[in-house]
Amino acid sequence: MKYDRVYNFSAGPSMLPLSVLEKASAEMMNYNGSGMSITEMSHRSKTYDAVICNAVDAVRRVMNVPENYSILFLQGGASGQFAGVPMNLMTGSNSADFVVTGQFSGKAAEEAKKYGTANIAATSKPANFTYIPAQEDLVLSPDADYVHICYNNTIYGSKWNYIPETGNVPLVADMSSCIMSEPVDVSRFGLIYAGAQKNLAPAGVTVVIVRNDLMGKAMPITPAVLDYSIQAKNNSMYNTPPCFPIYMIGLVLEYIEAEGGLEAMKERNEAKAKLLYDFIDASEMFSNPVRPDCRSVMNATFVTGNAELDDRFCKEAAAAGLVSVKGHRSVGGMRASIYNAMPREGVEALVSFMEKFEKNNK
Amino acid sequence: MKYDRVYNFSAGPSMLPLSVLEKASAEMMNYNGSGMSITEMSHRSKTYDAVICNAVDAVRRVMNVPENYSILFLQGGASGQFAGVPMNLMTGSNSADFVVTGQFSGKAAEEAKKYGTANIAATSKPANFTYIPAQEDLVLSPDADYVHICYNNTIYGSKWNYIPETGNVPLVADMSSCIMSEPVDVSRFGLIYAGAQKNLAPAGVTVVIVRNDLMGKAMPITPAVLDYSIQAKNNSMYNTPPCFPIYMIGLVLEYIEAEGGLEAMKERNEAKAKLLYDFIDASEMFSNPVRPDCRSVMNATFVTGNAELDDRFCKEAAAAGLVSVKGHRSVGGMRASIYNAMPREGVEALVSFMEKFEKNNK
Repeated sequence: MKYDRVYNFSAGPSMLPLSVLEKASAEMMNYNGSGMSITEMSHRSKTYDAVICNAVDAVRRVMNVPENYSILFLQGGASGQFAGVPMNLMTGSNSADFVVTGQFSGKAAEEAKKYGTANIAATSKPANFTYIPAQEDLVLSPDADYVHICYNNTIYGSKWNYIPETGNVPLVADMSSCIMSEPVDVSRFGLIYAGAQKNLAPAGVTVVIVRNDLMGKAMPITPAVLDYSIQAKNNSMYNTPPCFPIYMIGLVLEYIEAEGGLEAMKERNEAKAKLLYDFIDASEMFSNPVRPDCRSVMNATFVTGNAELDDRFCKEAAAAGLVSVKGHRSVGGMRASIYNAMPREGVEALVSFMEKFEKNNK
Repeated sequence: MKYDRVYNFSAGPSMLPLSVLEKASAEMMNYNGSGMSITEMSHRSKTYDAVICNAVDAVRRVMNVPENYSILFLQGGASGQFAGVPMNLMTGSNSADFVVTGQFSGKAAEEAKKYGTANIAATSKPANFTYIPAQEDLVLSPDADYVHICYNNTIYGSKWNYIPETGNVPLVADMSSCIMSEPVDVSRFGLIYAGAQKNLAPAGVTVVIVRNDLMGKAMPITPAVLDYSIQAKNNSMYNTPPCFPIYMIGLVLEYIEAEGGLEAMKERNEAKAKLLYDFIDASEMFSNPVRPDCRSVMNATFVTGNAELDDRFCKEAAAAGLVSVKGHRSVGGMRASIYNAMPREGVEALVSFMEKFEKNNK
C-alpha cells in the first residue's frame, strides 16, 4: 500500500482518511500561504478564526445541527464530559438517569455521582452488555435533569438501534465512537458529545453539541474551561483551543462531504459491517456475542472461544498488515473497529485472513 | 525563507523549530515504520507507549526534574489548571496565596475562589503590572495550602527575577510562557504547570510537574481527568491523551538537547532579548514600560505612545514578514514573543525594521 501503510483496526485513536493526512503533511510548514504552520498560529488570528469557524459550520452542515444548538470544541475527552455534563446540566433536581450498556456509560454514571444523584435507569450488565435495553425497560424519572446513554459501545461492540423517548427530560448521548458514521436526528437530543479520536480527528478535541436552553445553569464549581455557556460565548476560545485537531476536523468533514455526506457513510459502513458479521455468523470458529439487532456498525467484536487461539490470531493478523485487532483489555478476544476511514478493502482483507486462519486452524 | 515562512512573533501558539515541523510532516502518513500516522495510533499500543515515555523522560532530563516529582500531560490548558490546582491542592486549610502580576495570575486567583479562599499576597496592578513584587512585600499565610505565581507574564512582558521563599508552603508556578527557556531549580517548587503552545508543542497539552507528596488529596468533586493522582497512576493515560502534541513535545525536546539544552537556550534567549531591549531603550520612538530588572526574556512589549502609529507599525511589519507583533487586545501596543524557536535572525530583522520605521516616521 502507499507509504507502506497497514489496515489499522484500532478502536481509537484510529485511521484517518489518507488524503487528510497528506494535506496536513503538505501544509505543516506553511498553512495556506500564511507563512506558518497551523500549529504555530495565534488562535486569535484571522486565519485561525476562519479555520475554527469552518469546522463549526461543517459540523452543523454535515450533521444537520439545528440553529438552536451550539457546537463546542473542548478538551479533556469524553471522560472529561463525564464530569462536564453533570456540572453543567445536573442543576435542577440534581439527579440524572443513566442507562448502563458498557464500560464507558458505567464510568459516566460513576463520575456523575460526584455532583449529584445518578439513577441507573437500566443496565445490560447481567447479560455481559450483549444488548441494549428496550424502551419499555427503562426506568425513567420524570424530574431527572437528563437521561444519559452511550450511543455506541466501543468495547462491547453494541449500538442503540433506537433513540429512546424521554419526554421533556433532555437526552444526552456519548457518541464518541459513532459520530459522523450515519445521519442522526440531533433534535431528539439535548446534548451530544464525542471524543474526536475515533471518527473525526486526532485525539485532543471533544465535540459538544448542546441545545442553547440547557446552557447557563452550570454549578458554581464548574471549571471555566468546561462551562458550556462560557465556551459558547467565546466560540470555544475562552482559552487556547486544541488548534491542530480542530483543523483536522475541518479536513475530515471536507472529505466526508466530498464522499457524499453521512448518507453515503452509513451505506458504506453498513455494507462493511455486513461483510464482516455475515462471515462471522457463517464461521464455525468465530462468533460474536452481541444480539444481532444491537450490533455496532463501527466496532465488531469476535472470539474463537480459545484465548490462546485469539492471541495467535491477533499476532498473525498484525504480521499480515491487519493491525490492532486485539479486543479491549477488559474483555479480551478480537475487535475490528471499522470507522469511516477504513476502506472496504481493509474489511475484505480481514475477512479473507479470517477465512484462511480458520482453515489453517481446524 | 524556506517554504516562504515568516518570522512569527505570536505569543502562543507560536513558532516551532522548522526541523520539528519537517519531521512531523515527513512522518504524518507513516510513523517510524508502524504503517500509520502518530495521529491514528492506539494510545495503548507499544509504539505510542514509547512515544509518551520518551516525552516524559525528556522533560525530566532537560529540566532536571527530581525523582520525587511526577510529570503529567493533561488537557485543558493553563486555564484548566486554574481550577485543577485548587481542586487537587487546596484541601488543607482550603486557602491559598496568590501573587497577582498580570491577567493570568488574576484569573488563576478568581477561578480558585470557586474552591476555597484565594488571598492576594501582593499585586502590581496599581502600577499596571510593570514590576514583580519583592519578597518582603509578599503577605504570605503560614497555613496556606500553596502560594501561586505566574513566573512569566505573557501579556505585560514581565518575569520573576527570583524564586520566592515560601517556607513549608508549596510554591505553584504557571510557567506557560517560559518553560524550557532557561534552567530552573524544580526542587524549589511544589508544582509547575504550563500550556505547551508557547515554547514546547502545539496547543492541546498541559505539562504538570508535581511533587509526589502533594498528590492523593484531591477534592471529591475533582473530575477524574484533572485528578493528578489518577493521571499519575495511569502515566497520563487515564483517558486518551492528546497524542499528537505529546509526540511533538518529544521532538521539540530532542531539538533543545541537540542545541545544548536549557543553558544554551538561556544564553541565546537573553542575547535575543538584549538586542531588542537595547534598541528600545536607545530609541526615541519606542519604549517599554516594564521595570528593567523585571523584563521578560520571552515577551517584549513596546509602544510608540501613539495608538495610530502602533497600528501602522503592526501592519507594515506584517507586510515585511514580521507577523503577530500586535500587543494583547487588553493592553494594545506591540509585543514580540521571542521563544526558543525564534532565531536570532528574526529579532535582528525586527530591530532593523523598527529602526527604519522610526526614521520614516520622525
